[in-house]
Amino acid sequence: MLVLITYDVSTQSAAGKTRLRKVAKECVNYGQRVQNSVFECILDASQLLMLKDRLVSLINEKEDSLRFYYLGNNYQTKVEHFGSKTSYEAEGTLMI
Amino acid sequence: MLVLITYDVSTQSAAGKTRLRKVAKECVNYGQRVQNSVFECILDASQLLMLKDRLVSLINEKEDSLRFYYLGNNYQTKVEHFGSKTSYEAEGTLMI
Repeated sequence: MLVLITYDVSTQSAAGKTRLRKVAKECVNYGQRVQNSVFECILDASQLLMLKDRLVSLINEKEDSLRFYYLGNNYQTKVEHFGSKTSYEAEGTLMI
Repeated sequence: MLVLITYDVSTQSAAGKTRLRKVAKECVNYGQRVQNSVFECILDASQLLMLKDRLVSLINEKEDSLRFYYLGNNYQTKVEHFGSKTSYEAEGTLMI
């Protein structure tokens, strides 16, 4: 199923940047980074559990916000895009 | 239905900040800002058309990325949250 993961972290601090990089690295194992802190992952139930555990252990629960949206298996018609299609590397480097 | 709107814009520039503020203002008419650039809106079909038109006219299509995710009417079980529950004002002021 498609799981959308959105991660709100302050990247003003070096620690925040590092956490975003780590979260991105985990997520792109299962999908793609579609925006700076938005990831679309294709996961089965056990992968979801593992990834969720891993991400929750990486974030700062007092400062950061992490949200999961479950879009199911028939997600092709549930996503629409406008504007630029920037792609990101796992490390966070912007690819134009 | 619940429509998740994610907006990727560089807020390094004043123009980018202004666009994010304008997008946020439109979105919070229909829902809430759950992360800095993630909005959950409850929309019917005609509201969706109007909001989509409005947002597409606000963004810079060459630089920004705007994505819509359609989560349907039974969305309560499709969203999961971890970490801090920061809420934002429409103007973008961080509310702790």
